[in-house]
Amino acid sequence: MVSVTFKVNGRDVVIHANEGDNLLTTAQRANVAIDAPCSGNGACGKCRVRLISGELDSPKTRHITDEEYVMGWRLACVSRVTNDVVVAVPDIASAYRSRMKVADLSSPKELDIFNRTRAEIEAAGIAFGNNLSAAEVAMEAPSADDTMPDNERLAWALEAATGAARVKLTFYALNKLARVLRENDFRVRCVLESEGDTVTVLDILPAGDSTPVAGLVVDLGTTSVAALLVNMEDGSVLAKASTGNGQIRYGADVINRIIESGRENGSERLQKAVIDESIRPLVREMCATAGIDMKNVYRMCLAGNTTMNHLFLGLFSEPVRMDPYIPSFFHCDDLRTSSLRLGLHPDAKLILAPNIGSYVGGDITAGCFASMLWNREEMALFIDLGTNGELVFGNNEFLMSCACSAGPAFEGGDISCGMRATDGAIDSMKIDPDTMEPTYTTIGNTEHPIGICGSGIIDIIAELFRAKIINGKGKFSREGRRVRFDENGMGEYIIAFREDTGAVKDVSINEVDIDNFIRAKGAIFSATMTMLGSMGMDPSVLGHVYVAGGIGSGINMDNAVTIGMLPDIDRSCFSYIGNSSLSGAYAMLTSTQSREKVDELATTMTYLELSTEPGYMDSFVGACFLPHTDSRLFPSVEV
Amino acid sequence: MVSVTFKVNGRDVVIHANEGDNLLTTAQRANVAIDAPCSGNGACGKCRVRLISGELDSPKTRHITDEEYVMGWRLACVSRVTNDVVVAVPDIASAYRSRMKVADLSSPKELDIFNRTRAEIEAAGIAFGNNLSAAEVAMEAPSADDTMPDNERLAWALEAATGAARVKLTFYALNKLARVLRENDFRVRCVLESEGDTVTVLDILPAGDSTPVAGLVVDLGTTSVAALLVNMEDGSVLAKASTGNGQIRYGADVINRIIESGRENGSERLQKAVIDESIRPLVREMCATAGIDMKNVYRMCLAGNTTMNHLFLGLFSEPVRMDPYIPSFFHCDDLRTSSLRLGLHPDAKLILAPNIGSYVGGDITAGCFASMLWNREEMALFIDLGTNGELVFGNNEFLMSCACSAGPAFEGGDISCGMRATDGAIDSMKIDPDTMEPTYTTIGNTEHPIGICGSGIIDIIAELFRAKIINGKGKFSREGRRVRFDENGMGEYIIAFREDTGAVKDVSINEVDIDNFIRAKGAIFSATMTMLGSMGMDPSVLGHVYVAGGIGSGINMDNAVTIGMLPDIDRSCFSYIGNSSLSGAYAMLTSTQSREKVDELATTMTYLELSTEPGYMDSFVGACFLPHTDSRLFPSVEV
Repeated sequence: MVSVTFKVNGRDVVIHANEGDNLLTTAQRANVAIDAPCSGNGACGKCRVRLISGELDSPKTRHITDEEYVMGWRLACVSRVTNDVVVAVPDIASAYRSRMKVADLSSPKELDIFNRTRAEIEAAGIAFGNNLSAAEVAMEAPSADDTMPDNERLAWALEAATGAARVKLTFYALNKLARVLRENDFRVRCVLESEGDTVTVLDILPAGDSTPVAGLVVDLGTTSVAALLVNMEDGSVLAKASTGNGQIRYGADVINRIIESGRENGSERLQKAVIDESIRPLVREMCATAGIDMKNVYRMCLAGNTTMNHLFLGLFSEPVRMDPYIPSFFHCDDLRTSSLRLGLHPDAKLILAPNIGSYVGGDITAGCFASMLWNREEMALFIDLGTNGELVFGNNEFLMSCACSAGPAFEGGDISCGMRATDGAIDSMKIDPDTMEPTYTTIGNTEHPIGICGSGIIDIIAELFRAKIINGKGKFSREGRRVRFDENGMGEYIIAFREDTGAVKDVSINEVDIDNFIRAKGAIFSATMTMLGSMGMDPSVLGHVYVAGGIGSGINMDNAVTIGMLPDIDRSCFSYIGNSSLSGAYAMLTSTQSREKVDELATTMTYLELSTEPGYMDSFVGACFLPHTDSRLFPSVEV
Repeated sequence: MVSVTFKVNGRDVVIHANEGDNLLTTAQRANVAIDAPCSGNGACGKCRVRLISGELDSPKTRHITDEEYVMGWRLACVSRVTNDVVVAVPDIASAYRSRMKVADLSSPKELDIFNRTRAEIEAAGIAFGNNLSAAEVAMEAPSADDTMPDNERLAWALEAATGAARVKLTFYALNKLARVLRENDFRVRCVLESEGDTVTVLDILPAGDSTPVAGLVVDLGTTSVAALLVNMEDGSVLAKASTGNGQIRYGADVINRIIESGRENGSERLQKAVIDESIRPLVREMCATAGIDMKNVYRMCLAGNTTMNHLFLGLFSEPVRMDPYIPSFFHCDDLRTSSLRLGLHPDAKLILAPNIGSYVGGDITAGCFASMLWNREEMALFIDLGTNGELVFGNNEFLMSCACSAGPAFEGGDISCGMRATDGAIDSMKIDPDTMEPTYTTIGNTEHPIGICGSGIIDIIAELFRAKIINGKGKFSREGRRVRFDENGMGEYIIAFREDTGAVKDVSINEVDIDNFIRAKGAIFSATMTMLGSMGMDPSVLGHVYVAGGIGSGINMDNAVTIGMLPDIDRSCFSYIGNSSLSGAYAMLTSTQSREKVDELATTMTYLELSTEPGYMDSFVGACFLPHTDSRLFPSVEV
């Protein structure tokens, strides 16, 4: 046995390990969070730790520069412990916090998309409005001649004010009742939940208090979590934030997460990771921004894929990934959030966007609703570019869905300089075909880029391909100042030299990155073709393609066609609709009619299992090429 | 500033105090529990602590023997700190635990009374039965052709098995669902709550599991707490227990408790005292006895006086004691117990026996129901001998209630050798008028008595009076081996000499004790006369008197008349009905019809405020005598 000490966030965590044990696994056993989105195969280079004393059996990988190696940097996933060792672990939580300030919706473009979605829903005749409200009432103070107890006094006043036949008090409201009444001269503001002719008092505040009746929207993605704090009475957005999913250290994809959740106390561990490290900090941050207490959040709606909503609830999720792939629920009744330790009002209910299968979940039913596909006669395609890629094809008469595993590449995962679409990310780029010099933009117009988000990667690959710097297989075929080959002949294109930016690393893209991205786009394209093919159709039937996801609003549709990710149809048919899962969940939370519509869509939507569909694997292999092995599918792309 | 160290339960609690500070107050400030039922006026002698080092400005009182004083024993309530001091505090909680084993209902007599009450309720046509039940269902396991999610699969099976139109799952059930189904081959036992045609699944257990669907009954008294664990399906009693109310260190009566609750964090402190020190330990103990987990308790019913149920819920209670005496509620909708940290099933609901005013609470509405007063034509009186004495007078046409402050004497409080009616308590006694020698019985037939419970005190006072050892004022008027006078001339009768029992103290009763008890019985008698008088009636109208409370089943009604506590009517008209609050709460929990009946009684029962009733004070003064200053009221008592 050897002793392994992790220095993390100012404290030492010491655990005993066997010689030869993997360092990443040892850290997970000690409940030390190391960012390891690729589940530990040395691919992503994110699990960097720094050796302080002792030694590790740890090869130098392409993710670590010579200087860094000398300074002690190692990848935990390829390191084995051989004797007593002390390693420093970068603090994931503080990394999340720093990222959190830059919300998806903070960019005016994203906010614009969000507002347009809301307007479209209203235009479709779906009213905003829900059963939460606030009402002010004034009562006579009790006297010797009027000794009615407080709860009856309030009930009478509220019945008169709201016309309700019955008024009930929650324990939370009863608990505040006597004091708030007397401190405010029997003039109060009540937060109410209506159900038929019964009104339930959730909260009692002083009359004139302007605290909004707040609600929480969460898009729980495998890689990212985005949230809104909204005013339930008028639908206005009070605050917005996003962060990484704290479960990422247990694996980048849903399968690895489920496997981890099946281990001892795994469900609790994964639930804790997403609630304690992602959702609750987001809520706390947003409430601070909005100047309200977390107890003033009276309802929540969460949209996430089937695995995410199962892990969020702490459910035993193995049946989701094991044949015959059975979730605990598709639709479930409103749950109480109080069991989830989110810190919201104790009677806040949780609305979950409904799943339709193990691999098409609430993010897609909510997102498909936001895409408005179901409200149009033209046949259209909705594509959600997440860690899982999901597609819905249909119109106002039918909806068919399918899912494919794209990996985290669209959100910058599995890409050495990849990052989410936040400040400092390259989100669009051009390359001069002669000089091979790039020009690019970054989100937030930062002076130097710090990485590349999904839309930037599409541009880079498209431009490298156009400039013939890479070939159809994604291999480098030109040489120059910005192209570099390592000892194994693997090519790399440097977008920003660290000498110019002052950063520790170049911002670059290499053949492994390109290969990862080609697989991701290949999965999406072959899913599109297979689904259309299953109905005897091809992309020419598509009146529109709605692209959603965290890939970034900078997505260049022409470039996406150039690399063979989207079908080669008229470019005006493409729209980027932002985080449709978040928009859809927002609608479900604030609008009872929207919620009913999403539930209806979920029951009518069919599901196509691609893995059993003939030709899907061939289609995928053909799509793992720029733009495709069958160039006839991309007539407008010059090869 | 001086430093005060309390050694309690193996740990040291250190707090700074000013010279001259009261030791009991200092302990309360340090949150150290010292038993002080009389609120700290040196009367009860229960707040004994032992000086370990340093000095206290502390007089020797009659509660401390010379040997004890030398050994360092002091009463905290009359001690002032003068310099740094270390005192040892007897562990109240462990005292409670040791007392807990001896439940009110463990005596066959008490259990008999309880069962008779239940039979009477059924004989009155009130059905037992409630909306909790268990049902076993077996399902087909899912397959590739049958991929229905788990919750729908269970809902279908339960709809078929129960005929319910709708099945809902609680979060708790959903959380267990996938695992329990698969570990038990899709054969499970569900705990169900029915409401109209909807069935809610509270819990999922393996098929064949014999865990009962348990419910909890609590009688929350100011001084004592009694509880039952019952099987909700057949009403059988699974376990019984009783203990002291952990709030007692904040005062013996409701007024002092409310004052304390109004101080900073007072509501939380009093709630914590009764939940953490009394109710949860009782539940834990009973669940251990019954061999079930606390999570298998699916509902709770609590009966207590208005102040007790307010403090239990942690409500701001000052308005209950302040003119115009307004409670937060009389009746309230079912609350969820989960906010109370009782450790029950998270969806367990709390039923509260309804209050009818600030001084007539759920213990009386539940108890009056159990007395069956409301079901008979004859006019009768129901008397609950608690710390507050409450009376209900009426028949099947009207019910009138009133309350008086009796103090804790009936439960053995305010009496130097008083104790609750548990093992070792003298519960009946005779005195030879010639030799003045006593013969007595103890509960549990212990070899030596350790104190005197309420029924024993009644006998002792009646026998001392009959033997003319004391006069009508309760002063000693004979001398002998068993009668002792202190330096101030205060008399005392020794029932058991410590030389004979080997105990630290004699078991005795002195003039202060007798005076306290006379005031208690005087309050009850004058309340009886005033209430009857308010309707122009006198005791001759009474067909029956039902006596309830923790006074003990050994109560001798003839002696209770002799001392002038109960009216001088035919002795066959008296019945002791035990802990009627507990019996009534049991009925409310297990029988929906009983609950509806109690709610109905509560709305029809009127309340007579004695303090504003002319003649009440005069009546009380006259009743503070043996048997009464007006001997014509007690023709059968020889004076």
